[in-house]
Amino acid sequence: MVKINDNYLKLPGSYLFSTIGKKVREFSAQHPDKKIISLGIGDVTLPLVPEVIKALHGAVDEMAVKETFKGYSPDLGYEFLRSTIAEKEYRTRGVNIEIDEIFISDGAKSDSGNIQEIFDTDNKVAVCDPVYPVYVDSNAMAGRAGDYDPGTGRWSKLIYMPCTSENDFAPDLPKEDPDIIYLCFPNNPTGSAITKARLQEWVDYSNRIGAVIIYDAAYEAYISEDDIPHTIYECEGAKTCAIEIRSFSKSAGFTGTRLAFTVVPKELERGGVKLNSLWARRHGTKFNGTPYIIQAGGAAVYSEAGRAQTKEQIAYYMNNAGVIREGLTAAGYSVYGGVNAPYIWMRTPKNMTSWEFFDYLLNNANVVGTPGSGFGPNGEGYFRLTAFGTYENTLEAMERIRKL
Amino acid sequence: MVKINDNYLKLPGSYLFSTIGKKVREFSAQHPDKKIISLGIGDVTLPLVPEVIKALHGAVDEMAVKETFKGYSPDLGYEFLRSTIAEKEYRTRGVNIEIDEIFISDGAKSDSGNIQEIFDTDNKVAVCDPVYPVYVDSNAMAGRAGDYDPGTGRWSKLIYMPCTSENDFAPDLPKEDPDIIYLCFPNNPTGSAITKARLQEWVDYSNRIGAVIIYDAAYEAYISEDDIPHTIYECEGAKTCAIEIRSFSKSAGFTGTRLAFTVVPKELERGGVKLNSLWARRHGTKFNGTPYIIQAGGAAVYSEAGRAQTKEQIAYYMNNAGVIREGLTAAGYSVYGGVNAPYIWMRTPKNMTSWEFFDYLLNNANVVGTPGSGFGPNGEGYFRLTAFGTYENTLEAMERIRKL
Repeated sequence: MVKINDNYLKLPGSYLFSTIGKKVREFSAQHPDKKIISLGIGDVTLPLVPEVIKALHGAVDEMAVKETFKGYSPDLGYEFLRSTIAEKEYRTRGVNIEIDEIFISDGAKSDSGNIQEIFDTDNKVAVCDPVYPVYVDSNAMAGRAGDYDPGTGRWSKLIYMPCTSENDFAPDLPKEDPDIIYLCFPNNPTGSAITKARLQEWVDYSNRIGAVIIYDAAYEAYISEDDIPHTIYECEGAKTCAIEIRSFSKSAGFTGTRLAFTVVPKELERGGVKLNSLWARRHGTKFNGTPYIIQAGGAAVYSEAGRAQTKEQIAYYMNNAGVIREGLTAAGYSVYGGVNAPYIWMRTPKNMTSWEFFDYLLNNANVVGTPGSGFGPNGEGYFRLTAFGTYENTLEAMERIRKL
Repeated sequence: MVKINDNYLKLPGSYLFSTIGKKVREFSAQHPDKKIISLGIGDVTLPLVPEVIKALHGAVDEMAVKETFKGYSPDLGYEFLRSTIAEKEYRTRGVNIEIDEIFISDGAKSDSGNIQEIFDTDNKVAVCDPVYPVYVDSNAMAGRAGDYDPGTGRWSKLIYMPCTSENDFAPDLPKEDPDIIYLCFPNNPTGSAITKARLQEWVDYSNRIGAVIIYDAAYEAYISEDDIPHTIYECEGAKTCAIEIRSFSKSAGFTGTRLAFTVVPKELERGGVKLNSLWARRHGTKFNGTPYIIQAGGAAVYSEAGRAQTKEQIAYYMNNAGVIREGLTAAGYSVYGGVNAPYIWMRTPKNMTSWEFFDYLLNNANVVGTPGSGFGPNGEGYFRLTAFGTYENTLEAMERIRKL
């Protein structure tokens, strides 16, 4: 008789955004006249930029003709894309990443969920609290998280690193040494960034104790301040302790187009084994590449016109972030983030819990956000709004909140 | 200090097709004048059909406009595609599959590699021998395969089910009862099919012992004979014991376009838990959907014109299969498969090993195939050729082999 993976049964309830979706659908069914504005899930709303569209059409045409048709792509992704990334994302920042250190994939969610596989199941994992749920759930599914305690909202074997207003939402080094450390900066959900000096402390610490940092930099494109690192490899020694995950979802509106990449430096070894080889093996065995059409679209993001057009989109969203920051501040709320990230993290008013505020906002302003507690115990009492709505909706949402 | 997943280190050498690629590149570098014909890797060569191209362009245009732009897709895939699959792949064959039993993905390789995750690591796994390497490697990476013995070419904990000319390349029920059974029909690499009566035996057996069948039907579109089931759900009771994996790679030339689906019936429970819920959780946590553009392209395969055009492609490849079968038979070889599958499985001549014959064929006919031993110990003494080349190349390859 087959035995199922019991670790799956330990996962509490359903995925955060499914619950939100359900609540919104129910409200909508009961109040079909109300116009709901969603500043909840981190999904973009602007269409793909013209330069990407042109490249996608071009690639579709190539697939229509025998001479230019593409079958299976190379395991790591097409070289035209990897060499462009090495040049435009890294060399321009003084970082040398070789093309066989770059793995093209279908998404940062896939990569950040799958990367734990190359590590033993009894490693000690540290996560920020609050945190993007995928890091926790994927480790829980592998049995690395122990048991979930619904009372505390915590897993027995994970090391939680609180990120609150007290530490500017950048974690302090943990008391107990972890083996695997998940860091996401600019941060989802808090919208905070980490300075290069503070990130360097994490790199030094990880090298000292032999830990590996999984660095999720999916929101890198939103950095606006000078002392914020765009890649962890700007820190000295990061290549011997860090894996970096990047995405086209938020930098070029690819949430529904699916493209990302992960960097595993060849210098990164543990127990005499290159993690690059392990990830290459994982990639080669359980994945078969990203569609050629999509990779061609991704490369167009780096053309001069593509860069200009996607920068404009980011500016549009960051203008929304400003509107939210100002609107909430004017309405008397405590507000964080939204300067180097498309997320605004706010304190809930009047000691409301995160879910109470979710319901309050949905019922009274018909605005949807994300309850902070959905991201971890230290997210309780906070609430996330995203800058990915339209300008008009964002303005209207702030207007409605101001009137509450 | 982080510990790596030691199971990865147990994997022998590199992935089969990487080794072949390397040998071909080396030969090519030494003999730049020789025209190599590859009938090796199972990659299609015909371009995408016009109906798919039209749909891809249409979807790209939708992504260019705010009103029709698509962000994150639904976890399971778009309903327009899932309901079309339920209708065209199943209902027309008298099988009722509900749309929330269908999970759209980026490939049958991903799904067949990832599906083992929902099962405990100490289940007993049975695989055909020879076998598509992904089933074995993905279980080895999870620690389910035990240790690899280079002498026998076998993993200590796997149950091997020999598929040879003696049993028409369809395995006999194993002596030791497994928990998870991988079956692939029409088969890669042997090109053989299984009759409905024999598949029914497997379904009955699995239901009796509580095992789960992972049924890989990626080559279903190539079935030409009447008594061969197109889906395992044609067998009575399959919904309580089988997961079916399907692909657009070979049915519509999507190898470089990436689209597949997996069916997990809601009736399939073990230990009181629905496997459908487990796979949904895996899908929702570690995957973020297939590009909208690609899903739209996939739906076009089911339009009347799309069906006619892809059927023509399959007929083209199956004509190649006939050319190979006849050519090899005329040249005195023992040949199997190629009737319900795009693969031809041949005996190597003169007691050559599979790799000896690979080298012999590469050096003397400049034709590339796949050594049978790369698929498992019982593949030794066999060799795989695929029908995915051009007609002209396939003819020429047979001409060259005939002259050896």
